[in-house]
Amino acid sequence: MSNTWLSTLKTDSPQEGFELAIKLSRMGVKYTQPSDEIRKRLREDYANNADSLIAASQVVAVNFQTIAAANKYWNSGS
Amino acid sequence: MSNTWLSTLKTDSPQEGFELAIKLSRMGVKYTQPSDEIRKRLREDYANNADSLIAASQVVAVNFQTIAAANKYWNSGS
Amino acid sequence: MSNTWLSTLKTDSPQEGFELAIKLSRMGVKYTQPSDEIRKRLREDYANNADSLIAASQVVAVNFQTIAAANKYWNSGS
Amino acid sequence: MSNTWLSTLKTDSPQEGFELAIKLSRMGVKYTQPSDEIRKRLREDYANNADSLIAASQVVAVNFQTIAAANKYWNSGS
Amino acid sequence: MSNTWLSTLKTDSPQEGFELAIKLSRMGVKYTQPSDEIRKRLREDYANNADSLIAASQVVAVNFQTIAAANKYWNSGS
Amino acid sequence: MSNTWLSTLKTDSPQEGFELAIKLSRMGVKYTQPSDEIRKRLREDYANNADSLIAASQVVAVNFQTIAAANKYWNSGS
Repeated sequence: MSNTWLSTLKTDSPQEGFELAIKLSRMGVKYTQPSDEIRKRLREDYANNADSLIAASQVVAVNFQTIAAANKYWNSGS
Repeated sequence: MSNTWLSTLKTDSPQEGFELAIKLSRMGVKYTQPSDEIRKRLREDYANNADSLIAASQVVAVNFQTIAAANKYWNSGS
Repeated sequence: MSNTWLSTLKTDSPQEGFELAIKLSRMGVKYTQPSDEIRKRLREDYANNADSLIAASQVVAVNFQTIAAANKYWNSGS
Repeated sequence: MSNTWLSTLKTDSPQEGFELAIKLSRMGVKYTQPSDEIRKRLREDYANNADSLIAASQVVAVNFQTIAAANKYWNSGS
Repeated sequence: MSNTWLSTLKTDSPQEGFELAIKLSRMGVKYTQPSDEIRKRLREDYANNADSLIAASQVVAVNFQTIAAANKYWNSGS
Repeated sequence: MSNTWLSTLKTDSPQEGFELAIKLSRMGVKYTQPSDEIRKRLREDYANNADSLIAASQVVAVNFQTIAAANKYWNSGS
């Protein structure tokens, strides 16, 4: 992909970090299946399947680990 | 999502950290399937399926790793 | 859950840490399926299925990582 | 494989790191299935299957953790 | 289990560490299915199934991460 | 196994580290299924199945994390 979509792992808050984790998870899919149309169609499948949703949440969890570490867990003190 | 649901990864105890890990795991699902109604229906599926429950517990385990690290494992001494 | 079941990640030995990892793995299931009766019934399923047992062992492994780190790998010297 | 395809984990930006993570994920497949023809055929399968795409994104997430750590999360300050 | 089977994560070499990782992976199964007879029967299943073997290797990999960290990657120098 | 196959996690380059990760992943399988003949037969299965290949790449990714950490990510400077 030629355009820039990820310039930093830093976010202002844990919640923004979590949302960035979701973005990374989706980009992991997009690099493999670049067609917006096909991904949209597949979304119907996995958004209505419990096991797929759990698997998607697992990917988010792994990416959130990375982002949380990059932000030193948003700790100001300690 | 416009409202704030995650402002810190810090918790007072490991158990609260574990419960936050469960919340993160569920939010990972919610971002993909925002409909409360559909998620409620799917819950009937996975809450009665051993493999789904194990997979859900795996997501919680990964999120708990992140939260435990953020809280320096709730170590006061050492 | 209102009662306290996890007050510390510290254990006296690696083996107790491993057993705590098993407890965390089961609690990850219990928060999703609180019914003791249903979980007992499902146990018949996964305790006799090789893939389910491997998946359960995977969850324990992730939780054991967390607990081992919390205990600094039970290293006294090094 | 005799030719060099991975000489460093360092990248200039998080996005390049993510793209390297995708490369590592594909190389993990290639070492097991070296045939370009077979991999191309299989791509048709998984690129149109939601669960396969989620699993592929999971592999990318794990490799991205490694690369992000190698690049100290691309933090210039802190 | 009342008997001691894990008193330390330290090993003399990476290979012994890998073998300990295999032991941990099997113990993760044993705590869920304590019957030697049933586990022996199930072994027939997964030892002849490619996906089960890959999943088993994944559990070993996670446990090996823990053990390698506990042994500071068996680095004498650096 | 009585013979030595893993004496160090150190490698000269990231690529050699990746190849060692592949070796560890295969050894994780071999300890469970020691028969060369059966593993060879099973290889036909998973080398032609997209999901199996993705799962295999996941195991490699986890092992590569360990090896990369052991080699301090092959950073000479910083």
